[in-house]
Amino acid sequence: MERIPILRMGDYLLVTIQVDMHDRLAMALQDDLTARIAKTGAQGVLIDISSLEIVDSFIGRIISNISGMSRILDAHTVIVGMQPAVAITLVELGLTLPGVLTALDVEKGMALLRRLVDVPEEGDDEDNAEF
Amino acid sequence: MERIPILRMGDYLLVTIQVDMHDRLAMALQDDLTARIAKTGAQGVLIDISSLEIVDSFIGRIISNISGMSRILDAHTVIVGMQPAVAITLVELGLTLPGVLTALDVEKGMALLRRLVDVPEEGDDEDNAEF
Repeated sequence: MERIPILRMGDYLLVTIQVDMHDRLAMALQDDLTARIAKTGAQGVLIDISSLEIVDSFIGRIISNISGMSRILDAHTVIVGMQPAVAITLVELGLTLPGVLTALDVEKGMALLRRLVDVPEEGDDEDNAEF
Repeated sequence: MERIPILRMGDYLLVTIQVDMHDRLAMALQDDLTARIAKTGAQGVLIDISSLEIVDSFIGRIISNISGMSRILDAHTVIVGMQPAVAITLVELGLTLPGVLTALDVEKGMALLRRLVDVPEEGDDEDNAEF
C-alpha cells in the first residue's frame, strides 16, 4: 500500500508530500505520523508541500488535523515550501489554516521549530541536529 | 509537470523518492539536482528511497548516474532507507550499485556525509558553550 515516508532527523520528523492526497493516504499519514511522534518523542514535525500545486479544503483540513493531533502529542507542526499561488488560492477560498505554522523552506522551518521547542541546545550525545 | 522536490538543509540536499520513476521524471531529477548542487554549492546529497518497494536496473542506473554527476560537482551522494527486500533483490539481480554510498536512515546518512565532507564540526555560530 502506498504510504508517505516520514524521515527522522534528530528531534524532528520530516514529511514531504509529493502525491495527491486521497482519503486513505491522508488517514494513513495521520496514523503513521502520530504513531511516530509517540514512539520517537519527536518535538517537531516539518511538512514540505513544495510540490503541491493545489491545496483544496480537503488537504487544508488534513493539515489542520495533523497539526492539532501533533500539538496534543506535544509536537509542533510547521508547513514549509508553500507555493505563492497556493497561498493566494487558500486566502481567496477563505481557508486561512488557523493554528497552523508556516515557514518559507525547510531551513527556516527548522529554525522556527528550534525556537518553539527551545531545547537547551547542548546535545548530550553526538546528534546535535545542525543541518 | 511532476517534479521530485529537492530540500536544502544546510550544506546538504535531501531528495525523497516516493513515486515510480519513469524516464522523464528521472531526467528532470538529474537536471534539477545538478543545477541545485551548482547553485547552492551543496557538499552532500541524501536520497531517501524508503518508500520504493522495487528498485530495478533502470532506477539503479539513475542512482548511479546521479551519484557520479554529484561527485564531479564535488558533492557526495548517500542512498538511505533502502528496504531489506530491495537490497536482496538488487544483489540477486547482480546490481550492486558500484560507487554508491548507502546508509540505514537519514540520520546515519547525514553522519556519513559529515565524515566525508570533513567539516571542522565546531559550528562557528551557535556553538555549545560548555565552559
